[in-house]
Amino acid sequence: MTTHGASLIDVARAAGVSTATAGRALGGYGQVSERTRERVLAAAAELGYRPNGLARSMVTGSTQTIGVVVTDVANPFFATALRGITDVTSPAGFEVLLANTGGVLEAEQRAVSVMSEKRVDGVIVAAARPGEGAHLRRAMDAGVPVVLIDRQVSGVPEADSITVDNDHAAAEAVGHLTELGHRRIGVITEAGDQLARVRTGNRRRGLFPSAVRLRGYVSALEAAGLPVDAGLVASARYDRESAYDAMNRLLDLPEPPTAVLCTDNVLASGAYRAAQDRGLRMPTQLSLIGFDDEPWTTLVRPELTIVEQPTYDLGARAGRQLLDRIADGAAPRRPQHIQLRAKLVARGSTVPR
Amino acid sequence: MTTHGASLIDVARAAGVSTATAGRALGGYGQVSERTRERVLAAAAELGYRPNGLARSMVTGSTQTIGVVVTDVANPFFATALRGITDVTSPAGFEVLLANTGGVLEAEQRAVSVMSEKRVDGVIVAAARPGEGAHLRRAMDAGVPVVLIDRQVSGVPEADSITVDNDHAAAEAVGHLTELGHRRIGVITEAGDQLARVRTGNRRRGLFPSAVRLRGYVSALEAAGLPVDAGLVASARYDRESAYDAMNRLLDLPEPPTAVLCTDNVLASGAYRAAQDRGLRMPTQLSLIGFDDEPWTTLVRPELTIVEQPTYDLGARAGRQLLDRIADGAAPRRPQHIQLRAKLVARGSTVPR
Repeated sequence: MTTHGASLIDVARAAGVSTATAGRALGGYGQVSERTRERVLAAAAELGYRPNGLARSMVTGSTQTIGVVVTDVANPFFATALRGITDVTSPAGFEVLLANTGGVLEAEQRAVSVMSEKRVDGVIVAAARPGEGAHLRRAMDAGVPVVLIDRQVSGVPEADSITVDNDHAAAEAVGHLTELGHRRIGVITEAGDQLARVRTGNRRRGLFPSAVRLRGYVSALEAAGLPVDAGLVASARYDRESAYDAMNRLLDLPEPPTAVLCTDNVLASGAYRAAQDRGLRMPTQLSLIGFDDEPWTTLVRPELTIVEQPTYDLGARAGRQLLDRIADGAAPRRPQHIQLRAKLVARGSTVPR
Repeated sequence: MTTHGASLIDVARAAGVSTATAGRALGGYGQVSERTRERVLAAAAELGYRPNGLARSMVTGSTQTIGVVVTDVANPFFATALRGITDVTSPAGFEVLLANTGGVLEAEQRAVSVMSEKRVDGVIVAAARPGEGAHLRRAMDAGVPVVLIDRQVSGVPEADSITVDNDHAAAEAVGHLTELGHRRIGVITEAGDQLARVRTGNRRRGLFPSAVRLRGYVSALEAAGLPVDAGLVASARYDRESAYDAMNRLLDLPEPPTAVLCTDNVLASGAYRAAQDRGLRMPTQLSLIGFDDEPWTTLVRPELTIVEQPTYDLGARAGRQLLDRIADGAAPRRPQHIQLRAKLVARGSTVPR
């Protein structure tokens, strides 16, 4: 077992040619006779020579590698988006350097910095903090194209973005409930502490998807002429147990909601479980809507009404966008902000009030 | 916006020193006066100089990068294992180069070859075909440590492996059913065509986890003194629809099974759905066992009895094993074959016959 295989020098020596000639023969560039080329290739095969991608990248300036930075690769949402990215970039000859940040800003900053040092050709980032974009700005200034996915980030207006129209998605879900006659509609959200902000502000950047969805909830209630009751906005952390508790708080209210919207799939599973454990009959006693078409949503009874995000497509579009930017090189171009539409899928968990 | 930032030459020129001196000052190696070092660092900061990771890797021989090759990153099993890998390797300063093969051998061969060219420090591979290990052998021969995950591969006995004891896992599930008095126990499996092979052979390598689980099913029946009826072995592809059809074939038998084992989580969800759609009462009319503790398994009624695989730990152990190998360098060492135990979690979907 050799440690790092034969070098170009070894191949050149065995073939009886100069290192430069051996490099041209193996790389398929420049002038080299057919006979010499064959001799070099034979020597390379004999010695088990492995071309050095690092050396080639030093010459070409491209590593044929893109960076992908997500907050939690174990979340089915990001796992599916990642599959969309690799399905597009892999056939184009690009490898994916993956970083999982756990939603920690410092981990993201470090990942982007290391990827930049490793000379990735571009990065796709699901940002840990939509309000913090300085490190992404630095990467772009150093010539690394950045495509934002799932969430906009303030401070990097030049970066392309592929997001879901979360405003519209949540508003459509709430609109479905108001049309069914519901008047007291609760929401379980990670962004409960931002209710005041989403009601007054109208900034599109620097908001988590959960906050944008909360804004959609508010605007749909207002459109239906219904009051926004802060008591119906239940905060939860991003885990099932916390959503379970939030659902119980809503159901313990003197006047509980008749319908509840959960702003993602993890929260929906915890809320569904809480309703089951209280022996509540869905949908007659409570209507429920979640996000994402996870397999479980059609295995439970009643099946869950959901907002289906185009998750795979989100990744695939981000991959294509980044490949476009890489192909363009340094040519300045207006940033693209692509919003994909989510789709309401009505099932058994929502009925007229 | 600069295209690729300042070079070392630019920094040296701005600081009024030689390129070699600038390199020493920035790299923190060799002799350089404190005053010179400060001048170089100031120039580097001024110019926005970004150290070149490729150049550094050419010198150190390490890219601080590992490759991870899986068949489907969108499968929660691999997504969770991947999270386990990154949680271990990221704090150690390693980045992950990810490849998704879709279970296609050629894609895996290409990925391992490209990763090897990019000089990854090692690879973790969930192999597309446990019978095909020549490309992994070549990587090891070239000095790239290989750790196999989830499945053994024939032809690379020197590679470390971290797998689940699938024999035991399936046998325990079937044993649970025989203890409950079940005598006609069906199985829905991707390895149905390998029934003859797993009954006669005793090779541990070169089998998919599904085939090893089928072997565990057979041996548990034999241990309980029950006949192995090929009619109770229903083949399915790796998707819900195919498992749905397989369950219906089992239930259409003149003498249908009273209990069914599904050898992974995707198959279990399709089979569960089929039982629901036929209006079959679980568990009284049918007991069912699946694999993996997915969130849906406790949201359905009855809750699903499952074999819980230590999926996250599988990834974390593989990450640690690879870091150990990388630290050892070329020192020869016996391969480690670590088998983790799965755990039966009995829930409402299994009752006495």
